[in-house]
Amino acid sequence: MKLNENYRSLSRSYLFSEVEKRVGAFREMHPNQELIRLGIGDVTLPLAAPIVAALHDAVEEMKEKQTFRGYAPEHGYPFLRAAVRSHLEGYGAVLQEDEIFISSGAKDDLAGILSLFGAGNTVLIQDPVYPVYADTNILAGNRIVWMRAEPENDFLPMPPKDGGADLIYLCSPNNPTGRAYSRAQLEQWVQYAAACDAVLIFDAAYEAFIGQHGIPHSIYEIPGAQTCAIEIASFSKTAGFTGLRCGYTVVPRGLCRCGQNLNAMWERRKAVSTNGVAYVIQRAAQAVYTPPGWKAVQDAVSYYKKNAAVIASALQSAGIPCCGGVNSPYIWMKCPNGMTSWQFFDHLLQTAGVVGTPGSGFGSAGEGCFRLTGFGDAEKTRQAAVRLVQAAAL
Amino acid sequence: MKLNENYRSLSRSYLFSEVEKRVGAFREMHPNQELIRLGIGDVTLPLAAPIVAALHDAVEEMKEKQTFRGYAPEHGYPFLRAAVRSHLEGYGAVLQEDEIFISSGAKDDLAGILSLFGAGNTVLIQDPVYPVYADTNILAGNRIVWMRAEPENDFLPMPPKDGGADLIYLCSPNNPTGRAYSRAQLEQWVQYAAACDAVLIFDAAYEAFIGQHGIPHSIYEIPGAQTCAIEIASFSKTAGFTGLRCGYTVVPRGLCRCGQNLNAMWERRKAVSTNGVAYVIQRAAQAVYTPPGWKAVQDAVSYYKKNAAVIASALQSAGIPCCGGVNSPYIWMKCPNGMTSWQFFDHLLQTAGVVGTPGSGFGSAGEGCFRLTGFGDAEKTRQAAVRLVQAAAL
Repeated sequence: MKLNENYRSLSRSYLFSEVEKRVGAFREMHPNQELIRLGIGDVTLPLAAPIVAALHDAVEEMKEKQTFRGYAPEHGYPFLRAAVRSHLEGYGAVLQEDEIFISSGAKDDLAGILSLFGAGNTVLIQDPVYPVYADTNILAGNRIVWMRAEPENDFLPMPPKDGGADLIYLCSPNNPTGRAYSRAQLEQWVQYAAACDAVLIFDAAYEAFIGQHGIPHSIYEIPGAQTCAIEIASFSKTAGFTGLRCGYTVVPRGLCRCGQNLNAMWERRKAVSTNGVAYVIQRAAQAVYTPPGWKAVQDAVSYYKKNAAVIASALQSAGIPCCGGVNSPYIWMKCPNGMTSWQFFDHLLQTAGVVGTPGSGFGSAGEGCFRLTGFGDAEKTRQAAVRLVQAAAL
Repeated sequence: MKLNENYRSLSRSYLFSEVEKRVGAFREMHPNQELIRLGIGDVTLPLAAPIVAALHDAVEEMKEKQTFRGYAPEHGYPFLRAAVRSHLEGYGAVLQEDEIFISSGAKDDLAGILSLFGAGNTVLIQDPVYPVYADTNILAGNRIVWMRAEPENDFLPMPPKDGGADLIYLCSPNNPTGRAYSRAQLEQWVQYAAACDAVLIFDAAYEAFIGQHGIPHSIYEIPGAQTCAIEIASFSKTAGFTGLRCGYTVVPRGLCRCGQNLNAMWERRKAVSTNGVAYVIQRAAQAVYTPPGWKAVQDAVSYYKKNAAVIASALQSAGIPCCGGVNSPYIWMKCPNGMTSWQFFDHLLQTAGVVGTPGSGFGSAGEGCFRLTGFGDAEKTRQAAVRLVQAAAL
């Protein structure tokens, strides 16, 4: 019996449980003080009316023998693959329906995609970043090379001088820094990936938050990406689907490595390892792309972005270095007075009753930084921004 | 760049596409002849009313900010883990809630579970059987040892004389043979797995179809199973969830191998690779275990089993060897007159307008056999049973 010994190399992330522990202790000491949470990574607005209506309609179909749907196509219903294709085409990313695979969310496919690759690959990953890229690669037995995102590179690391990368993860707009790569920067990344025969894994989970021109929503807006990139996307943040579980992954037909076609491999992988996504959920996702659906989800995104702007503007007025909040729900700030991430967490909690997320939880380059998010309530976010600036000045 | 070269060893299954191709050709030649499908592996009755009501209620909760649910616990909502625990306890299988992990269906976890194990394990698999066990193990780089299910062993292979197995897959009641292991037989399997330090992977997808006493619904009815077995189960066939995607996997806390606790590893695996199952789907699954929900799903199971009994009884009256259909929706018959599986498929289609599934599609030991199912319409199944016996006599 052989076990996967890589599980032993996985360090347990105590980030959010430690946050909850400290918040619980504070509440016990100060039962009457109202806390404001600016650390939330989950959406808080309910599902939009057109999405709710689509869910109810689909549930009704499941009630009648004539309209009941059993096993779904493993790769997604054609109606949803077509809707995603058309959405991406709106950005200038022209793909075929059979290059788009409906998923139960980005996280599932971030783990599943590594089934295509052997163990022992060299993987470039941003630091700080969503911890799932590292954890899944540790389990797969790969070697991680970290790329520090810091003020010196504007939090947007560019390709290293040497080659040797097999896989490259880019999250843009980034969680947690909120920074997004420009078209020119992504062109450099695509050229680099092509030059060293690497595969670029582009996490587009926050694309709906992009407001500025010149920031690609999809990696396939970049010429050459169809032969070197996989895109992993999600309805979670775009449309508030964190509790519904739906996303999509693009593996172009032109993506070949080691004499194999990765689109055909992924098609096979999905057929072997899933029976698709629930019909009712796929109908809900389709409703996102209808005119009333798209308007409603854009309204929610605007609400979160306004919150992020309120926080960013308060920090900037106070002269506290920060980034993000423009094309992203996240604000990444430097902890004041040389505090570590956890020192500032405690300071902010104790003096202001505001909860954020220590940056060191997203990687060692995040030490001394702090993540705030726009996913809270608008009025409370305004109050918290005032308290935050006061606490930072203490 | 290293790819997973095991994809090259995967043989593409053309079973159901070949079935559709031949059915299509027949329809073109005989546009007016009504076909009856007895090859369906999917449920056909709609969702039961209590499940539909639970879905609508949960969708309504997602509409309001106060009751909206975002990210679900990765391992399942406590309300559903508790309901499954209680269901299993009713069979005498006593487990803790944190040993039960809610999944998006059995197929997802059959692929995921192999993440716990290294490559190069020796795996015992029944032949014929659900092809996913073999495909996932080929991709993981394991060595498969087939156990032939044939009349000589009553289609229920028992442990081999020699040890050396690392993983053992048992599907009981079996797809496609419909045969189920007795308590005494499963005791032998548990003893064998314990003796050679193997892990037994028990697929209980069809447990709801068991009607006879002495046939375990869960492997944990067998003493000792909690230290050697993983159980993978699904609401697909129990409650018609093939289009909703929900199941559960049990990894007991007492299951340790190579100095590691598999429950802790699986908990970690789920946290790294999924954000759980949709809230609305988990509420639907919970409704299965309410008194009206359970009555409704039992009624559907009875409907399918009556269909299976009609087919089995017609074959038996005609003296055609067959098994299954008692604790299962499947009937496994010997093709008459020495025909191969595909020869009988064509013969049955051409002479009777009845569609079944060639047994050879489930493994080489299935050659010369044929699978029929009770998932069709009752009246049509009765007509098909008559035609089937007539065709077999030709």
